[in-house]
Amino acid sequence: MDAATAAERLAALMAERVDHRFKGLPPDAEGLTLAELTAERRNLFTGGFTTPVLALSAERLEHNLTLMETYAARHGLAFAPHGKTSMAPQLFQRQIEHGAWGITLAAPHQVRVARAFGVRRIFLANELVDAAALRWIAAEQAADPDFRFICYVDSVRGVELMDAALRGRGTSRPMEVVVELGAGEGARTGVRTEADARAVADAVAVAPTLRLVGVAGYEAQVPGASPERVRGWLGRLVGLAAEFDKAGRFAGADEIVVSAGGSEWFDAVADVFATIPELTLPALKLLRSGAYVSHDDVHYSRLTPFNRVPEEGALEPAFRLWAQVVSRPSPDQAFVNAGKRDAAYDLDHPVAHVVRRDGTERPATGIEVTALSDQHLWLHTAPEADVEVGDWIGLGLSHPCTSFDKWQLIPVAEADGTVVDYIRTFF
Amino acid sequence: MDAATAAERLAALMAERVDHRFKGLPPDAEGLTLAELTAERRNLFTGGFTTPVLALSAERLEHNLTLMETYAARHGLAFAPHGKTSMAPQLFQRQIEHGAWGITLAAPHQVRVARAFGVRRIFLANELVDAAALRWIAAEQAADPDFRFICYVDSVRGVELMDAALRGRGTSRPMEVVVELGAGEGARTGVRTEADARAVADAVAVAPTLRLVGVAGYEAQVPGASPERVRGWLGRLVGLAAEFDKAGRFAGADEIVVSAGGSEWFDAVADVFATIPELTLPALKLLRSGAYVSHDDVHYSRLTPFNRVPEEGALEPAFRLWAQVVSRPSPDQAFVNAGKRDAAYDLDHPVAHVVRRDGTERPATGIEVTALSDQHLWLHTAPEADVEVGDWIGLGLSHPCTSFDKWQLIPVAEADGTVVDYIRTFF
Repeated sequence: MDAATAAERLAALMAERVDHRFKGLPPDAEGLTLAELTAERRNLFTGGFTTPVLALSAERLEHNLTLMETYAARHGLAFAPHGKTSMAPQLFQRQIEHGAWGITLAAPHQVRVARAFGVRRIFLANELVDAAALRWIAAEQAADPDFRFICYVDSVRGVELMDAALRGRGTSRPMEVVVELGAGEGARTGVRTEADARAVADAVAVAPTLRLVGVAGYEAQVPGASPERVRGWLGRLVGLAAEFDKAGRFAGADEIVVSAGGSEWFDAVADVFATIPELTLPALKLLRSGAYVSHDDVHYSRLTPFNRVPEEGALEPAFRLWAQVVSRPSPDQAFVNAGKRDAAYDLDHPVAHVVRRDGTERPATGIEVTALSDQHLWLHTAPEADVEVGDWIGLGLSHPCTSFDKWQLIPVAEADGTVVDYIRTFF
Repeated sequence: MDAATAAERLAALMAERVDHRFKGLPPDAEGLTLAELTAERRNLFTGGFTTPVLALSAERLEHNLTLMETYAARHGLAFAPHGKTSMAPQLFQRQIEHGAWGITLAAPHQVRVARAFGVRRIFLANELVDAAALRWIAAEQAADPDFRFICYVDSVRGVELMDAALRGRGTSRPMEVVVELGAGEGARTGVRTEADARAVADAVAVAPTLRLVGVAGYEAQVPGASPERVRGWLGRLVGLAAEFDKAGRFAGADEIVVSAGGSEWFDAVADVFATIPELTLPALKLLRSGAYVSHDDVHYSRLTPFNRVPEEGALEPAFRLWAQVVSRPSPDQAFVNAGKRDAAYDLDHPVAHVVRRDGTERPATGIEVTALSDQHLWLHTAPEADVEVGDWIGLGLSHPCTSFDKWQLIPVAEADGTVVDYIRTFF
């Protein structure tokens, strides 16, 4: 897909019409295109939006996009932000405009979304042994010489299954793979030992449909992760790249991919990747952090590396979920009309930040989210809490990945509430 | 909307084309309409579907639809299955064809979905004080004399907000409301006492835009719910209906709505609603259970009332999530390519049922799901487990409401794997 077609596909998203598919949008906007609704510059609070509605901050989103662009550039890292977080082609495009090398993904159906909007470089940070998906990707590559695709391998059997699926499919070029080094005993995917890594690389070497181009892994899975342990594991990863290079295992590659980096340890990744020795080919040091785009108010606010390196900046939580108090059945209870369908709940409860009533916003003093039902949040209200039926509560969320996935269309609002864009997701 | 238009809207769902929006569908079906893909009668296991893919059993779905139809009829209950579970207009339609009075929903955006597909009777089992949403519903009622809408009230302030939103909107008829009786101290929404119920009813009586037509609540929220306590609360609900009727509070109604009943206690609801005394108007005894449509393998399998009344039948778990083993990094670990994005995880982990390899299916002996990442399930494998990279694992799920909401299109497969339908959801 050429750039013009990709731009058309993105523009077509804004030609979609407001209807029952998109919760939170103003009922009286039914039938408008999203472009027309955007042009109306409605206010999130007075423009007829219905609750619950999740909004992204326009300013914070831009801030986060810029901050990670400059962070990666400053540290000599290529950046393939994890697209599974947002699954939003418009954000993929903005990430690429902000200097990203490409987009990381986790599953082949996510690759289909990215490809439908013309993403040219995709790093699949996962094993892929599904024959139907492999053949589709090979066909995409055959049809588009600009499409670069790299995925993990971590078992000889996996390599054999990939090769079997791809053999005789008339693939134009080998599929690029990296050996995934597991983060330790009991960790997630990835080979447990360097010896296993060699065995997998040996299998790739005799699979004509595959080409080994690097090594990768995910440092956040290091058991008992601490700065020392994470750096230790990153050192093993870098060492494996150097060993494989010395052994000639990357013959046929144009560059050597070394990839790590979620949203908790990219400072350690930057430090350790700076120590990668001179290799026989250029090194593509690929960082994959994805949660930064919206950041959050709890989990990643606590764990972000910027807490350790404040001189390098700070991400800003960009989500706010607005829900309305529908019930106040006792002095210490209130209920809003958002629940598990609307808010992340896997790591932490949402956090009540502000209360809006009659156009005035004030801190949500004495209000705590204590539980979630499918369609309700349970609020405990202390004696000092001033909450009435009809109030809008602005909530912060924890875990971007399980926030985005509950919304198919997300208004982007400026600080004064003016909605200036709508972000479409595909989960 | 007339029946013909509603049928056209449902048919239009099958005119949608297979593309990146729908995970799990065969990549080589891209561009086909869903009707064309259905006509191909592809096999779920050999037809090019990619993992993860959630499937509904055609036979079990039909069994469950029929069982609750006959259950409700046998007990003289009207049935408004909770549509928030599936948010699937095709299933709403089948529920209505199976005798349902209408559809229960929880939020106004869900009402928009149901209305877009012509559902005529909607019971909103929730308070609604959002002015934009109320005005939209009033406009729907003005445009369609066949649209009946009923919602909860549980506070004087809520009644006042509703009335203020609806005043002067030229509404053709009052909005019908029922007083929600809370299930006890510390429970969810709903008035805590009969005195509060009277105060709310008094407020409705002086709100010209509203009409009181009944009482309702949700017995599963009874604190420390036991058969005795649930029956005790249901007795209070029935008593409140009788008291209100005697006091002439339902003047202007055509019938008196008494509604309760989730998926855990409908046996108690049937028993206690059978004791509703003769009222001055016909009683609409409205059951709202929603989870029955797919049922599940853990939570509702344990809690279903049919366990107490086996002579009345048994629901059958209709979901199976298929995921592929992508990594087997140690003798006691395996990872499949489904995670929090694909499986319910709020009440229980998924349960590994079967392993498929080379077309052969066998029990998933020694395989246990121990954790979920965003895009992986962590499997613990005992020594007797026979699992390899590439195997498909068939998993049972817990909690229908948080299973449906992770899939926008769900293949419906017969026992031999033939996919005979596709169910579209709108969350």
